[in-house]
Amino acid sequence: METESATQEKAGPFTSAWGWLKALPGKSKSKVLKVAKSIRKLGQDDPRRVVHSLKVGLALTLVSLLYYSRTLYDGFGVAGMWAVLTVVVVFEFTVGGTMSKSLNRGFATLLAGALGVGAQHFASLFGEKEEPIVLGFLVFLLGAACTFTRFFPRIKARYDYGVLIFILTFSMVSVSGFRVVEVLEMVHQRLSTIIIGGATCIVVSTCICPVWAGDDLHNLITSNIEKLASYLEGLGDEYFHYSSEDEGKAKVSNKDNSFLQGYRSVLNSKSTEDSMANLARWEPRHGRFGFRHPWKQYLKIGAISRQCAYHIEALNSYINSNIQASEEFQSKIQEPCTKMSEESGKALRSLASAIKTMKNPSPANIHLENSRTAINELKVAVKASSLEQADLLAIVPVATVASTLIEIVKCVDKLSEAVHELANLAQFKPVEANVSPEKPQLLLHRGIVNPVLDGDNDTDHIVITIDANPTDSPENEKPQATKPQATTS
Amino acid sequence: METESATQEKAGPFTSAWGWLKALPGKSKSKVLKVAKSIRKLGQDDPRRVVHSLKVGLALTLVSLLYYSRTLYDGFGVAGMWAVLTVVVVFEFTVGGTMSKSLNRGFATLLAGALGVGAQHFASLFGEKEEPIVLGFLVFLLGAACTFTRFFPRIKARYDYGVLIFILTFSMVSVSGFRVVEVLEMVHQRLSTIIIGGATCIVVSTCICPVWAGDDLHNLITSNIEKLASYLEGLGDEYFHYSSEDEGKAKVSNKDNSFLQGYRSVLNSKSTEDSMANLARWEPRHGRFGFRHPWKQYLKIGAISRQCAYHIEALNSYINSNIQASEEFQSKIQEPCTKMSEESGKALRSLASAIKTMKNPSPANIHLENSRTAINELKVAVKASSLEQADLLAIVPVATVASTLIEIVKCVDKLSEAVHELANLAQFKPVEANVSPEKPQLLLHRGIVNPVLDGDNDTDHIVITIDANPTDSPENEKPQATKPQATTS
Repeated sequence: METESATQEKAGPFTSAWGWLKALPGKSKSKVLKVAKSIRKLGQDDPRRVVHSLKVGLALTLVSLLYYSRTLYDGFGVAGMWAVLTVVVVFEFTVGGTMSKSLNRGFATLLAGALGVGAQHFASLFGEKEEPIVLGFLVFLLGAACTFTRFFPRIKARYDYGVLIFILTFSMVSVSGFRVVEVLEMVHQRLSTIIIGGATCIVVSTCICPVWAGDDLHNLITSNIEKLASYLEGLGDEYFHYSSEDEGKAKVSNKDNSFLQGYRSVLNSKSTEDSMANLARWEPRHGRFGFRHPWKQYLKIGAISRQCAYHIEALNSYINSNIQASEEFQSKIQEPCTKMSEESGKALRSLASAIKTMKNPSPANIHLENSRTAINELKVAVKASSLEQADLLAIVPVATVASTLIEIVKCVDKLSEAVHELANLAQFKPVEANVSPEKPQLLLHRGIVNPVLDGDNDTDHIVITIDANPTDSPENEKPQATKPQATTS
Repeated sequence: METESATQEKAGPFTSAWGWLKALPGKSKSKVLKVAKSIRKLGQDDPRRVVHSLKVGLALTLVSLLYYSRTLYDGFGVAGMWAVLTVVVVFEFTVGGTMSKSLNRGFATLLAGALGVGAQHFASLFGEKEEPIVLGFLVFLLGAACTFTRFFPRIKARYDYGVLIFILTFSMVSVSGFRVVEVLEMVHQRLSTIIIGGATCIVVSTCICPVWAGDDLHNLITSNIEKLASYLEGLGDEYFHYSSEDEGKAKVSNKDNSFLQGYRSVLNSKSTEDSMANLARWEPRHGRFGFRHPWKQYLKIGAISRQCAYHIEALNSYINSNIQASEEFQSKIQEPCTKMSEESGKALRSLASAIKTMKNPSPANIHLENSRTAINELKVAVKASSLEQADLLAIVPVATVASTLIEIVKCVDKLSEAVHELANLAQFKPVEANVSPEKPQLLLHRGIVNPVLDGDNDTDHIVITIDANPTDSPENEKPQATKPQATTS
C-alpha cells in the first residue's frame, strides 16, 4: 500500500487529476447506468411503488389548487400551507396507513385545539404578568405527560401519530394565542385545511389503484406458508433421493441452496406482520375482507409459521454440515421421511391455497393424515433396523434429521388448526365438491355448520346457519361469504 | 346467552342503568388503579422514559420563549411556530434519533428552499398565465420522484425523514411563492427557526441524561448473548440431571419454563437491532464509543445469536414434547452433553462480558476448547454404547438432543469468531492478567499486536503498535483504548 501511494505521489497531483478527469465520463456513465438499473428493478419488483409515487404527486398538485385559486386563497390564507403539509405527511403507501394518519391528525387537532383555547382562557384569568408562566407550565405538563403515554405499547401501535399531533397543536395554539387574538379563527383554519388535505389523501389513495394493508398481510402470510411448503417438498427430492445414490449432501448444499433458501425470509417477518395488522384495522370493508376481519388470527398463523421456519432452519444447517451418515440406515428410513416431508409440504401448500382463495382448509387434512401415518411408518422402520444396526455414531445424524422432520409435522398440525380457526372466524366458503348432504360428518369441520348440542340424541339433525339474504345462495348448504361478488375469484 | 339478555330486558332499562350507575364508582376506581399501576410499571421498567418525557416538556417550554420574549417575536413572527413544530417532531428517545431527524430536517429544508426559489424563478419566466401550470407540473414531478426514492432501502433507513421534509418544503416554497413575494425571507425564517428548534433538541437530549442508541445496541447484544448463556447453563442442570434420576422431562417443561424462556426474545430482535444500528451511526463520539465504532459488526453478532436461538428453540420444543427416551443411553451420554451445554454457556457468558467491558474475548477460548473436547467425548461414549444398545427407537430422542447441542456448540464457535473480529475492529483492551512478555503467542489473538509477516523467519520478533500518546499507558504491552477515561468502568 505504501509503495503504491508513493508511486502516485511521484507522478504528481496534476497527472493523477488528469487521469481522474479522463476516467470521469466513463465512471459517471457506469454509475448513472447502475442507478438507472436499480431504479428499474425497484419499480419492476413492485409496480405499485411507481403508482404510489404518481398518486402522491397528484394529491400534492390537487391541494396546491388551494393556493392557485384566488377564492380559496381568500378563504384560507397562509393556513393553506397546512393542507400541503398534511398531504406530504399523511399520504402513506397503504390505505390503512393513510387512514390511520389522517384520522389521528384530524381528531388530535380538534381535541388539542379545544384544549388549547381552554388553556389560553384559563391562563388569562391570572393577569398579564402570570399568563406566560401559567401557559409555559401547562405546555410543559401536557408535553411531558403525552410524551410518556407514547411509551404504552398499545398507544404506540395505533395512536402514536395522534399523540404527536396533539402535543404539537396544543403547544402551538396555547402559545400562539398569547400573541395572536384570533385563536379560534386559527384553530378553525387549521382544522379545515387538515380536513381538506386528509380527505384528498384518503380519496386518492382509496380510489386510484388502492394498496390495502390487509391484502398485503393476507398475501404475506400465504406466501410465507408457500415458502415453507417449497422447502419441504424440495427436501424430500434433494436430500433423501440424492444421498441414497451417492454422497449427495455436499451436492445439495452447493447446488440447491438458492432454491431451498426461500424460507429464510419467514424467520424475520414478525415486525412486518405486526405493523401490517395494525394498519389493516383502520381499513374499511374492501374486496373479500369485512370491517372486522380477524387480522389477529393472521398474526397467530404467522407466529406458527415462524416456529416451523425455526425447525427448518435447524434442519437445514444440520443437513449442510456434512456429517458422515450411515447410508444403509438412511436408505431404510428414506421412504417414510420423504413421505413425511412431501406430505407436510403438500399440506402447507393446501393450507396456503385455502387462505388465498378463502375456501375451507379441509383438503389439507388428508395430507396431514398421510404425514402422521408416515411418522408411524418411520417408527416401524427404525424399530425393524434396531437389531441389525451396529454403528450408532453413523445413525445419529440421520435419526436427527428424521426427528426434526417429526417436529415439523407437529408444527404443520398446529398451523392447520390455526387456519381452521381462521376459516371459522372469517367464514371461509366450503369446498363445493365435498358438500353433499350424504356426508354430514364432513361438514362438522367447517365451523359454519353447528351440530346440535351433545344433549340431543338425534345425531342426524343438523342446524345450518344461513345469513340474512338467502336469495344470494342457491344451495342451502352453502353459507354466505362476507362479500358475494368476490366469491368468483 | 339468550335467556340472560331476556332477563335483563324484563328488568327494564332503568333498573339496569341504575345498577350500572351504582357500580360506576367502584368500577372506575379499579380502572384508575389499573391504569396507575401500568403507568408506574412503565416508568419502573425503564426510568429513562420518565426523564425523556420531562426533557421533551423542557425543550418545548424553552422554545416557547420564542413567542414570549417580544424581541424574538419581532424577529421571527408567525414562523416561530416552526420552532415549536420542530421540537415536537424532531425530539426522539435516543440522541441518534434526535440527531438524525434534526440534521435531515435542516439540510432538507436548506436544499428544498433553494430549489423552491429556483423553481419559482424558472416558472416566472413563462408569463403570468403559464406560471401556475409550470409550478404545478414541477411540484408533481418532484413530489413523485422523491416519493419513489423513499423506496430505496438505504435511503429509507437513513434519509427517509429528510426526503419527506424536502418534498414538504419544496412544494410549500414554490407554491406559496406564487402568492407571497418574500420567498427568500420565508425560507430564511423557516430555516433559522428550524435551526433553533433542532439545536434546542440536540442540546437538551445530549446534555441531560442522554440516551445513546449505540449504548442501547451494545447492551441489547450483550444481554441477548447472556440470555442464550442462561439457557445453556440451565439446560445441563435441568434436563440431564433430573432425567437421570426420574422422568424429569415433564417436570422441566412444567416447572422451569419461565426460567428457560429468556432466549425467546432473541428470536425476533432483528428489527430493533437494525434500527438501533442506523441511529447509532448519527451519534457523536461518547463514552467508550468512537465516531466510527463498528456498529455493523454488532449486527453480524446479533445475526449469529439469532441463529443460535433458532437451534435452542428447536431443542427446547424437542425436549418439551415428552418423547419416551432410553434412560440407560441417556445416562451414558449425560456427562459429555452436560459438559457441552455448560461449557458453551460459559463461553457465551464470557463473550458477553468481554463485549460489556470491551476487553479482549480470549478468556472464552478455554470454554470453547472444553466444549469441543466434550463433543469428542460424546462421540466416544456413543461409539462405546453402539454394541450394547438394541432399542434404537428409544435412543433417537436422546441422540437428537445431543446432535442439536453439537450444532449449538458450532454456532457458539462462530459467535466467538465474530466477537473476536469486533474486538479487533473496536480495539478492545487486552485482559491484564494474561499480558506477560513471556507468552508472546497469547498476544496473537488480540489483533492489536501484529506479528511480523510470514516471510520473516525470526519468530521471536514481534511488532507492537502503540497509539500516539504513550504516557497514558504505563505498560508498553497495553495498547490504548479509544477513550482513556472510560477504561475504569
